[in-house]
Amino acid sequence: VLLTQMGWGDLGAFGEPSKETPNLDQMASEGVLFLDFYAANPLCSPSRAALLTGRLPVRNGFYTTNAHARNAYTPQDIVGGIPDSELLLPELLKKAGYTNKIIGKWHLGHRPQFHPLKHGFDEWFGSPNCHFGPFDNRALPNIPLYRDWEMIGRYYEDFKIDLKTGEANLTQIYLQEALDFISKQQASQQPFFLYWAIDATHAPVYASKQFLGTSQRGLYGDAVREIDDSIGKILKHLQKLGISENTFVFFTSDNGAALISAPQQGGSNGPFLCGKQTTFEGGMREPAIAWWPGHIPAGGVSHQLGSVMDLFTTSLSLAGLQPPSDRQIDGIDLLPAVLQGKLIDRPIFYYRGNEMMAVRVGLYKAHYWTWSNSWEEYSKGIDFCPGQNVSRVTTHVQEEHTTLPLLFHLGRDPGEKYPLSFASDEYQRVMERISVVVQQHKATMVPGEPQLNVCDKAVM
Amino acid sequence: VLLTQMGWGDLGAFGEPSKETPNLDQMASEGVLFLDFYAANPLCSPSRAALLTGRLPVRNGFYTTNAHARNAYTPQDIVGGIPDSELLLPELLKKAGYTNKIIGKWHLGHRPQFHPLKHGFDEWFGSPNCHFGPFDNRALPNIPLYRDWEMIGRYYEDFKIDLKTGEANLTQIYLQEALDFISKQQASQQPFFLYWAIDATHAPVYASKQFLGTSQRGLYGDAVREIDDSIGKILKHLQKLGISENTFVFFTSDNGAALISAPQQGGSNGPFLCGKQTTFEGGMREPAIAWWPGHIPAGGVSHQLGSVMDLFTTSLSLAGLQPPSDRQIDGIDLLPAVLQGKLIDRPIFYYRGNEMMAVRVGLYKAHYWTWSNSWEEYSKGIDFCPGQNVSRVTTHVQEEHTTLPLLFHLGRDPGEKYPLSFASDEYQRVMERISVVVQQHKATMVPGEPQLNVCDKAVM
Repeated sequence: VLLTQMGWGDLGAFGEPSKETPNLDQMASEGVLFLDFYAANPLCSPSRAALLTGRLPVRNGFYTTNAHARNAYTPQDIVGGIPDSELLLPELLKKAGYTNKIIGKWHLGHRPQFHPLKHGFDEWFGSPNCHFGPFDNRALPNIPLYRDWEMIGRYYEDFKIDLKTGEANLTQIYLQEALDFISKQQASQQPFFLYWAIDATHAPVYASKQFLGTSQRGLYGDAVREIDDSIGKILKHLQKLGISENTFVFFTSDNGAALISAPQQGGSNGPFLCGKQTTFEGGMREPAIAWWPGHIPAGGVSHQLGSVMDLFTTSLSLAGLQPPSDRQIDGIDLLPAVLQGKLIDRPIFYYRGNEMMAVRVGLYKAHYWTWSNSWEEYSKGIDFCPGQNVSRVTTHVQEEHTTLPLLFHLGRDPGEKYPLSFASDEYQRVMERISVVVQQHKATMVPGEPQLNVCDKAVM
Repeated sequence: VLLTQMGWGDLGAFGEPSKETPNLDQMASEGVLFLDFYAANPLCSPSRAALLTGRLPVRNGFYTTNAHARNAYTPQDIVGGIPDSELLLPELLKKAGYTNKIIGKWHLGHRPQFHPLKHGFDEWFGSPNCHFGPFDNRALPNIPLYRDWEMIGRYYEDFKIDLKTGEANLTQIYLQEALDFISKQQASQQPFFLYWAIDATHAPVYASKQFLGTSQRGLYGDAVREIDDSIGKILKHLQKLGISENTFVFFTSDNGAALISAPQQGGSNGPFLCGKQTTFEGGMREPAIAWWPGHIPAGGVSHQLGSVMDLFTTSLSLAGLQPPSDRQIDGIDLLPAVLQGKLIDRPIFYYRGNEMMAVRVGLYKAHYWTWSNSWEEYSKGIDFCPGQNVSRVTTHVQEEHTTLPLLFHLGRDPGEKYPLSFASDEYQRVMERISVVVQQHKATMVPGEPQLNVCDKAVM
């Protein structure tokens, strides 16, 4: 289950003050809650490419070199997409007999060669991009929805979203698709990989009629309630079919809450700094839950540093497969952390586009570059850190700290407000350790061909 | 159990990212978690006076008129304290045969006439003030500790606090006092009221040796871990003695986390704005748990707007007593909320000293005055809102909004970042309702004689 721009602080189990996610909270109480789990990028499209390849966007090509530290994704006019040379999780799972289905937002390129069924998925119900719109279908087409190879309609035209009321029954459609697929696989005794990647929490936020107005949190909260309810139904369905003990379920999100859309259309990053688009914790720290009754000890909590890229390696491990050995894989197998509570030492890298902005090692996070957004954007009211302002950190120019990184202790200071003194013993000791990690990372980094450099309206 | 300046976001159950409070989290899972519970004041001394009298500080005299909206408390040189005319919870409980003990920080005045044993408590182990220090005992005395009527020593002299390491075994001493008192009462079959008001989370923060360095959060986290462990031991003690089903336990704090002391000596207010000293949510929203096995349905969550003042009325209710009818009582009986999940409509008033700064009605909060602190203080590095900055809200001058209050929806916007448009229907509709509540409150307000106006070094 991959949500889009749901923030760390959006679940009751993670301290959302309205506590309106009883099903996800119960999922956590029956499984393991990951408190230190990360998106691979502060933007959804590269984060999803990383999840499905187990590789950082800078390796798999989901980035741009058009400008320094520029975030990029796949709108309708982007030429690129996931390269054929990348091995996607479903391609590999196929070898172990899995049937793979994606429900929801693909976001790895919309041109024919990037179609999910060309990259290992057997079934698709959903759309190549976000449900932005409505468009006029001349300058810009409305985003299409597919069932497998076939385009079956477009958002706003055939699949209604009422922007005034926020009503759309899409989550219910996506839920039914999931339940049907699971039933079919159970009936045929076939192993399956379901990538339920719905988008109700992405602006324009929507919910079905029966959920509208039910949340204390406004429309965004209504969407969260419907998703929470849907996930509860999926888990109960697995239990009813008697396959919950054979089904590993993981819940997380592709980037932090979009505070630019708050308060009506964006979520919460809890105590963390800023949100989507930034490499502060609010941009990349995600809610995450692993659930597998009979295998995972109930009510556990893990401080394993995790990443959406780990879902690639972990899923292969569950299927008895090894990750490809001919390329660098960034994801690790989380099963020792999930099943035995082990802690594996590994860094987390925070990229914006072509730049490694920060790295986390243990409880420490070093910023090599800091930036929120440009003065130009900010002066237009685009604010990635509303109500937050940390001197030298949430800057509107790109600040380089590569010779003397800003160092934070995320245990004492989860909000990244108090950089350690450069003169302290702690700074010296920790930066020695982190420098080795960064040097190794940079020395062995072979960037992929950037896929998100070229836009062309003709490809729409 | 009343902690001091522990923030809403300091418990795992409330989303603290290190999740290091297993005992409190379990207490919550066995009881009811209050998500909308408030201190009576953003400063500890007035908040405590309000808890024990069930009345706002502006009524019971725990405020100053020396300056507008000035917070005040009871340092060593304050002349005032709790007036004899106030009826304290233990005075009333005595009539129902209760033995009353306070363990920890009194903070209602240190001169002889304010002694807790003159105001209804039968036993005392603790100190009149915070454990600031060490002092030189000439210009300033070190704060004394009492057993009942007798002064038994002073902080830093007889009761060590090592400011370098943060080591002090005081929480263990306070824990043992609690366990012994409970055992004694159980043995004598006497009903009791124990006010366990320890102060390890107030700067200078301390913990016992076995807890030092055990938290991801630094020294503050070590203190929280020790308190969490201690509360676990108290609850287990009640269970072991077979009186847990006869003992109502409530956990909360007297004001929000002191962000001026962060990150080493201050806690977390989670997603809320600012901290101690302010009337933003971070200053007054508190973690709160009610526990009473066999009576309270386990794992409940309540959105009842609650206040520490309610503990006065609720405790009387548990003892079969009525609150005094000869004066205004602000606290309500929470038992219907705790036992039957009812929601009682009532406002929350946010005062700084002599000024009503804000009011909450339902999910809406209207600010009539906004202020963080003065430019003079701020320019010295005293910051009540580190890393936070909301235009027109976290100001360094007192901004008056009495004719057009700033209105926030705390469900959609718990961080108080997005005031509603004055022109919106919602603003008009809600302010009509709130205005009535405020008018009623002001019309019937009879302020008490201010007790915190006069300092005199002679009274030390």
